[in-house]
Amino acid sequence: MISEKQAPLVWSLPLGTPAAGIGLQRWLYDALRQAILSGRLPTGAMLPGTRALALQYGLARGTVQAAYDQLLSEGYLAARPGSGTRVSLALPETGMRNAAPAPRTGRRPAAAAAAPAGAWIERLAGSEPAFPLADRLAVPQPFMPHRCDVAGFPIDVWRRLHVRHLRPSRLVALEGTAAGGLPALRQAIANHLAIARGVAVAPAQIVLVGSVQQALDLCLRLLLSPGDTVWMEDPGYMGARQLMQAGGARVVDVPVDANGLRVADGLRLAPSARLAYVTPSRQAPLGMALSPERRLALLQWAVRQGAYIFEDDYDSDYRFVARPIPALKSLAGGDTQVILAGTFSKLLFPDLRLAYVALPPQLVEPFTRAASLTSRHPNGLAQAVLADFMAEGHFDRHVRRMRKIYAGRAQAFEQAARTHWRGLIEVPAIQAGLDIVGRLNGMDEATATRRLAAAGITAFALGRYRGSQWISPGLVMGFAPFDEAQIDASAAIMAKALGRREP
Amino acid sequence: MISEKQAPLVWSLPLGTPAAGIGLQRWLYDALRQAILSGRLPTGAMLPGTRALALQYGLARGTVQAAYDQLLSEGYLAARPGSGTRVSLALPETGMRNAAPAPRTGRRPAAAAAAPAGAWIERLAGSEPAFPLADRLAVPQPFMPHRCDVAGFPIDVWRRLHVRHLRPSRLVALEGTAAGGLPALRQAIANHLAIARGVAVAPAQIVLVGSVQQALDLCLRLLLSPGDTVWMEDPGYMGARQLMQAGGARVVDVPVDANGLRVADGLRLAPSARLAYVTPSRQAPLGMALSPERRLALLQWAVRQGAYIFEDDYDSDYRFVARPIPALKSLAGGDTQVILAGTFSKLLFPDLRLAYVALPPQLVEPFTRAASLTSRHPNGLAQAVLADFMAEGHFDRHVRRMRKIYAGRAQAFEQAARTHWRGLIEVPAIQAGLDIVGRLNGMDEATATRRLAAAGITAFALGRYRGSQWISPGLVMGFAPFDEAQIDASAAIMAKALGRREP
Repeated sequence: MISEKQAPLVWSLPLGTPAAGIGLQRWLYDALRQAILSGRLPTGAMLPGTRALALQYGLARGTVQAAYDQLLSEGYLAARPGSGTRVSLALPETGMRNAAPAPRTGRRPAAAAAAPAGAWIERLAGSEPAFPLADRLAVPQPFMPHRCDVAGFPIDVWRRLHVRHLRPSRLVALEGTAAGGLPALRQAIANHLAIARGVAVAPAQIVLVGSVQQALDLCLRLLLSPGDTVWMEDPGYMGARQLMQAGGARVVDVPVDANGLRVADGLRLAPSARLAYVTPSRQAPLGMALSPERRLALLQWAVRQGAYIFEDDYDSDYRFVARPIPALKSLAGGDTQVILAGTFSKLLFPDLRLAYVALPPQLVEPFTRAASLTSRHPNGLAQAVLADFMAEGHFDRHVRRMRKIYAGRAQAFEQAARTHWRGLIEVPAIQAGLDIVGRLNGMDEATATRRLAAAGITAFALGRYRGSQWISPGLVMGFAPFDEAQIDASAAIMAKALGRREP
Repeated sequence: MISEKQAPLVWSLPLGTPAAGIGLQRWLYDALRQAILSGRLPTGAMLPGTRALALQYGLARGTVQAAYDQLLSEGYLAARPGSGTRVSLALPETGMRNAAPAPRTGRRPAAAAAAPAGAWIERLAGSEPAFPLADRLAVPQPFMPHRCDVAGFPIDVWRRLHVRHLRPSRLVALEGTAAGGLPALRQAIANHLAIARGVAVAPAQIVLVGSVQQALDLCLRLLLSPGDTVWMEDPGYMGARQLMQAGGARVVDVPVDANGLRVADGLRLAPSARLAYVTPSRQAPLGMALSPERRLALLQWAVRQGAYIFEDDYDSDYRFVARPIPALKSLAGGDTQVILAGTFSKLLFPDLRLAYVALPPQLVEPFTRAASLTSRHPNGLAQAVLADFMAEGHFDRHVRRMRKIYAGRAQAFEQAARTHWRGLIEVPAIQAGLDIVGRLNGMDEATATRRLAAAGITAFALGRYRGSQWISPGLVMGFAPFDEAQIDASAAIMAKALGRREP
């Protein structure tokens, strides 16, 4: 057995020096992780003790310990009593993290950049599915994120509207819907965007699709040539990141802080990107709004560069503290550079599978053609029913009613966190949306989610949303589909599960 | 002005010698067209007279005249009285034809092969939409092809099934459908395939999508790497060809004859293709079935090569003379190499937008993931209603009933052709499907479709389905959505429109 003193090879590893503006713990974590992923620190290699490393680099021992702990919790390192800390024999393979991270230059390693543009089969094989493939989607368990409450949906109204459209006199509607969508529905969506989001678009600029995923997929195919770069929020929505990776785009992870996407970092990392994916109204998953200064900087970059911004406006109608924030698309430059995408699957119910894009005029025809060529159009009956549902006021009534209900549940969630999770999980004030991120205190994500699953609680590890940037451990949890009693009871179960020491 | 005798440059053009098995007229047509598209015969260049060319190549003058006429009708050549025949100043730009054709080696010119894999916006810009983008899809005009008759659809049954599924007790269904589709519907489709198509697949191998276009798109993305080749029927379905071109695949046009796809030509042109697109039950648009020998040869190639066959089984349930032909997928090798795709949009009504694939086991998971990532899943209510519609026997009843109706209309169409079109359009015996190809006698497609449009008649030019192979002029016409009286009256209008001399 190799003792700690017999492993000077590891010592010769150049870790470089900390960059300005990055915490020492994060610097050390990044440097070690990159050394492991690049193979410079090979599988099985032993790391120096925390004290030795702290001395050599002039760091506090606690800083080294914290970086080691993070790498241990993520599976990059393994520790056995009496054998020290080694590079793990089985590197972690959790979907979002198994590719080598982008170095600070914003460029992925050559292998990822050169990945073929076809042959998705190879690229998908290496990662976890972004969406469940199971044969049955059940009612969500607490605290499943990204879901609305279907129990509140006025299904009787919905049925009545279906009956109206399924009459012999309406047989002609079965011939098919226009490629861009039903004109009445496009009009209703344009009206909604004007009032709720401050966006002025003609109905002809609205195109109906099955999902925001489809809208993003089409934009990536339309706008990116091989080797073109796209900005992705980090952390960010895993469905978007996986789509970019599968399509062979060069994904540049742009960090997110308390003011949302760090636009200046994007400008530095990849000034000539073709597309930026952002969730400006409520960052997915962290929840902050993009600050006004950054909105302007982002738009100015897009206008200057001729780049496009994909604004994923996934649940902005559910804002509890004030009016919804106007869309990025409503600002100067947004008319020509911003593709605004929204979905009804989060506002009404997941199975509806209707979403829309509000497009810059120059993209309307190419987008419609690409949608029509690759999938034709979404089910027309659902479009006709939704058009009536909106035109007759049911949509606004439903959103207002659910907003109140979700606001109450958000409060209950905050209260439950104060009651049950003090010291375990930090929950921020909830201002909007269907879910939040709680920060884990002194527990890694793998341990937490494993214990929660055993207790019948669902929470997503924040790491699933991560690109290449370090982020402290957290859980993404939904509150919208659960009533106040369920929230309190489930929070108590959770506290017990997390507080319990591992057997 | 340059006289005919002053243009010896054209004479020096090497046209090669006719290949075995190709008619002289087609050889000359191909050689001249390629010379024009490649620029060797530049815009404005004058061609020799038909007599001089016939003498030089030892051809009958009529053969040369026929090749010239075809190129004139397609716009490659222009003739002015007293000025001879020249290469046209405005080369034709009809969607399917504006790319240079694949030379006999099966390789596209370098420009097409090097087309970027992203940036669809550029590739789409150069061609006509394969599907209409109009704001309103009307009831089809005679003789619009590829459409069924929605008037025969039992909309009352359809409404009743919707009401059943839209009850408060079924709210849970609004949570969403499994990525691959509703299990009950997959079971119903597997049963149908076993009985109607002789295909034994487990329900788990069936995946629901929105359209056959989407299924083909996903297969191209999953299976093809950049530079990979795909076989396309020529002539063939323009939706499929345009999808391949937009996606950047190397499309090899494989000719079709009276026995369907010329598999031996495919083997010669592109033996290492990754995918072959075929319509074996009823070739789209020509209508013949792929012969048993060629089915076996195609499957043997796929097995040997590890290639896949995309079997587009778009309207095989409508066969009037005997039982439907078993699917290619039912033969040896079909279980692992054939992706069978079918649609309900032609069997029930276009707006339904539900289609399925029966996949080889090894493709189920990657295909489902790709579908889920790029579009999630098709509307679940429509899936639930269709599952009941099939399980309760409505589907079989409807198809049987419509088959009888369409058979009667096919006969009426044949009769109308005999009555009104003798000498103008040759119509073959109709054995299956919703549409047929009539061959034009002595009129080019552009003239015919222009005159028909003016008379309120829709017919697609056969040239829209063409790849790089020559085909004599024809019209693709549908008979299924029109009753006997409409068929006879429209055929009479058509005869008048085509018989009338141009003003």
